Order: sequence, then structure tokens, then C-alpha cells
Amino acid sequence: MDPAERIKASFSKQGLMGTLGATLGTIAPGRVDIELRLSPAISQQHGFVHAGAISAIADTAAGYAALSLMPADTGVLTTEFKINLVAPAAGERIIARGRVVKAGRTLTLAQAEVFAVSDGQEKLIALLTATMMSIKGRDGIND
Amino acid sequence: MDPAERIKASFSKQGLMGTLGATLGTIAPGRVDIELRLSPAISQQHGFVHAGAISAIADTAAGYAALSLMPADTGVLTTEFKINLVAPAAGERIIARGRVVKAGRTLTLAQAEVFAVSDGQEKLIALLTATMMSIKGRDGIND
Amino acid sequence: MDPAERIKASFSKQGLMGTLGATLGTIAPGRVDIELRLSPAISQQHGFVHAGAISAIADTAAGYAALSLMPADTGVLTTEFKINLVAPAAGERIIARGRVVKAGRTLTLAQAEVFAVSDGQEKLIALLTATMMSIKGRDGIND
Amino acid sequence: MDPAERIKASFSKQGLMGTLGATLGTIAPGRVDIELRLSPAISQQHGFVHAGAISAIADTAAGYAALSLMPADTGVLTTEFKINLVAPAAGERIIARGRVVKAGRTLTLAQAEVFAVSDGQEKLIALLTATMMSIKGRDGIND
Repeated sequence: MDPAERIKASFSKQGLMGTLGATLGTIAPGRVDIELRLSPAISQQHGFVHAGAISAIADTAAGYAALSLMPADTGVLTTEFKINLVAPAAGERIIARGRVVKAGRTLTLAQAEVFAVSDGQEKLIALLTATMMSIKGRDGIND
Repeated sequence: MDPAERIKASFSKQGLMGTLGATLGTIAPGRVDIELRLSPAISQQHGFVHAGAISAIADTAAGYAALSLMPADTGVLTTEFKINLVAPAAGERIIARGRVVKAGRTLTLAQAEVFAVSDGQEKLIALLTATMMSIKGRDGIND
Repeated sequence: MDPAERIKASFSKQGLMGTLGATLGTIAPGRVDIELRLSPAISQQHGFVHAGAISAIADTAAGYAALSLMPADTGVLTTEFKINLVAPAAGERIIARGRVVKAGRTLTLAQAEVFAVSDGQEKLIALLTATMMSIKGRDGIND
Repeated sequence: MDPAERIKASFSKQGLMGTLGATLGTIAPGRVDIELRLSPAISQQHGFVHAGAISAIADTAAGYAALSLMPADTGVLTTEFKINLVAPAAGERIIARGRVVKAGRTLTLAQAEVFAVSDGQEKLIALLTATMMSIKGRDGIND
């Protein structure tokens, strides 16, 4: 299967992405974007986007960026991530731009920058770094 | 307002917690639990609970644990967190147990352990550490 | 070799621990302590202990806590850690108490709390969480 | 004082940098490099550079990158950092390239990439992200 098709098929199986209303953007080798339209359904108590929603799309973008460089029979699992939240999100939508920093046989280091988009302007709101693990030969885990 | 009432009122304003179906558990000074019933609506591609959903309740539990020790006119914002995911979640529900490690005037270090609960047994699935910031005198941020 | 003897032998090979003047403390299954006497040789610009020196003993304590639960032919490597520094170090010495949170076949999650010791009183100054990797069958890596 | 002079003067007060044998490289607004010559004095048990030594120069490079954008009466303290170690260090020396991701009034997010240099070739070995805090009006902390 084409890597982009593989990621689209996998993304559509993610219940959480549907629940949040996230959508896939650009897919390229080692790079995947995910977008999220702002709404009260993903807010924290002050009306900003919840750190959990920001993390969810950033982790997913980083994970698929890693998967895009892995063999077809391999699955990806997040083993850890750290996210720094540098500004509250405001605007129409946020976009997480995932990219691979270093691909390894077992572990891949990936990063995602998250931007708030307002009137066509992008402003950095968060930075995530994640360790992604390649999973082989485990039933049901090949994406 | 009673600290527990304050956290309950704040929690009910979090759109994301409602969207995910999370509920508040025990509230004590420096300690807050949040639960999440497992369902396909919060899954990743392999059917496990999405790291973003685990992070969302762990971050919220850690944040309210921090808020529970802050003055009444103060709000809390997450500035960063790291989460290690040590096992896939299986069972009926997951529970994040937030607690304050060190409360400071500006920054508070909080932690959340997340457990999968199955047949009354708890199994550790994730560990989060977070830096929470006290916000004073900013409009609309007092929880 | 006895696990404690193995860790002592490995520790003595760590050039950095000798350079910093760090010493091994208690060794138990899943738990290792490392101490460091305070001196201007390990300071940052304000005279406090440098975050790099705190990290060095915390990472080492966490790594040996992980190694203490691994088979004899296995080596340990740090793949990532995060450290929160909650207070400047003052007193006679600091002590890092490493312990395993979750031991896995490939990855082990370990933690280290670092305390400043002054007049027999311990005060928390830092908290580290680390992912340790088991290395097998690679020349020269069996500790 | 000229910002570069200020950083040089501050660096020379860091006992740990002298103990490790680290040296300052390029200084520019929002960017600072620090180098470390490889030697057995900074090794871990397998002969690689110790993660603590890598962290020490990466944290320092990130901290001074942050300080380079702060007012003259302000000091900088690391509140937390995370480092991913993606390859063991080999070669003649390592270089940490610190840069500011987002400067704020109280908190600054900085990053450092660490490279091993061998025969003029640079290879990424580690990535650090750090939260740096501005300190004002505290005795003895103005760098």
C-alpha cells in the first residue's frame, strides 16, 4: 500500500481523532500534518484549547511521521512524549506539523510543532518531542 | 468557595472532559483523581486508548491537584508535561491519580499516575510529570 | 557476579563519576543511590550545583536501578530523561535515589528523586524520569 | 556590558564547565554554542560520553541562549529539561547548539541540538528542550 494511503487508512481507525474532529493534512516521507478546528468541545476551563487536545494531534502527527519511514509490516507505538505549551491557542484552528528527527531500527525520535492559525497567520503554541517504537510481529499492530 | 466545589465547577467548564466522557473522582488537598471509561471513541489505530486521551486526564488530574493548593483568586495553566506510556490500556476504565510533588509560588511540580482498572485490579499504564503555573490578575483566569 | 558487585565494578569504570567525585550508596534490587559532595567544582554561575551535575548522578542512579533487574549479559543505555529542578541545592551533599517504576524486556521506566542533605535533613531538589534500554549481544556492553 | 561579554564572564564562573573542560563557541542573539573535547574523564561505563556530560553542555547552551535575550539585571535558572539521546558519541568532540524557541517574560523555551564532530563531519547525538526562568531582584542572580 502507498504510504500515504496507509496513514489515511490508519488515521480513520483512530476513534479519538474522529471524536475531536481532527483531520489529516499533508503527508510526506518523515512529515505529517494534522489539523483541529477550535470549538468549545475541546476546551479547558478558561476557554483555551485543552493541552490534552493539543497533545493528541501533536502525538498523532509525530507518530505518523515516524510510521511513514517504517516498513509495511511494522506498527508504531508512542513510548513517551514531552510537550511545552508556549502560548494559549486562539484563532480558527490549530495545526500540528510532525517530523522525524532521527529514525532508528527500534526507536524513532520525532517532533511536532503546533501552530494556531488565524487570518492565515501561524503562531507557535506548542512543541512536542516523542519517542516512537517500531512494533513487529505482534497481532493486529501493523500501522 | 470550598476547594472541592471550586474544582467541580471548573471541571464542568472543560469542554474536552465532557467530550471524552471523563469524570471527577476523589478530591483532597494536593490530590485529584479523574476517570475515563474505555470506548472506541477514545482509541488509537490498534484499539488501545489513545495517548492523547490518557494525557488529557493525567494533565487535568495533575492540574487540579496543583489548583487545590492555590489561593482562591488564582488560575492554573500547564506549561509543560512529559508522559511515559508503559503498557497499553485494557479493561473497563482508566484512572489518573494526580498529586503535587512540590508547590511553589509561581511554579508547581505535579505528577499523575494512570492505572487501567479491570475486575477491581489496578495496573500502571502511564506516568506524567507536569509544571503548572499560577496565574494571578488575568481576566477570566481564576481556576 | 553478585548484582551489587556488578554495579560497583561498572560504576568504577564511569570516568564522569570520578571526575565529579560521586560515590555509590545503597544498592538493592530496583534501587540505587548515588551521592555527590557539594563543591565549587560542580557549580553553575550563581554558585548552586549545576543542573548538569544533578542530572549526571540522577541519570546514573536511575540507570543502575534498571540494570539491577536485568540479566547478567545485558547492558543499559539511557534513551531519554526529563528532570524538573524544584529548588537550588544547598548543604553538604546531594543524594539521588533511583528506583524502577516499570521494568520491561526492552525498555524500563526508572525515576530518581534528588535531595539536598543539610544537618541530616533531606530536601527534595529534583525529580528525574528516564527510559532505559536493555542492550544485548553488542560487544563491550554488558553493564 | 555587551551580551557576549556578559555570557563569557558568567561562563567562567561555572565550576562544572571548567571541571568538564567545556568551552564557549559562537554567541549570537538567541544562540549559543558550547563544545566539549572527548576524554575518559567524561565517560560512562561503556566508554561513551556520559549522558550527564552531554546534558551539562546542552543545558548550559540553552540557558545562555535564553539569557542572551534577557535584560541586563536578570538571571536565568533552568526549571526543567528533557533530553533524547539518539546515538552514542564518538569522535574528537561534541558541540551543543542552543537556541531560543520562544522567549517570554517569565519563562523561555529553549532547545539544544548536540552533535558529535569527527573529521569535520557533524552527527546528531542528542536533542534537549528546556524551560528557562527569568530571575529578577534576587541577590547574586543577574546572569
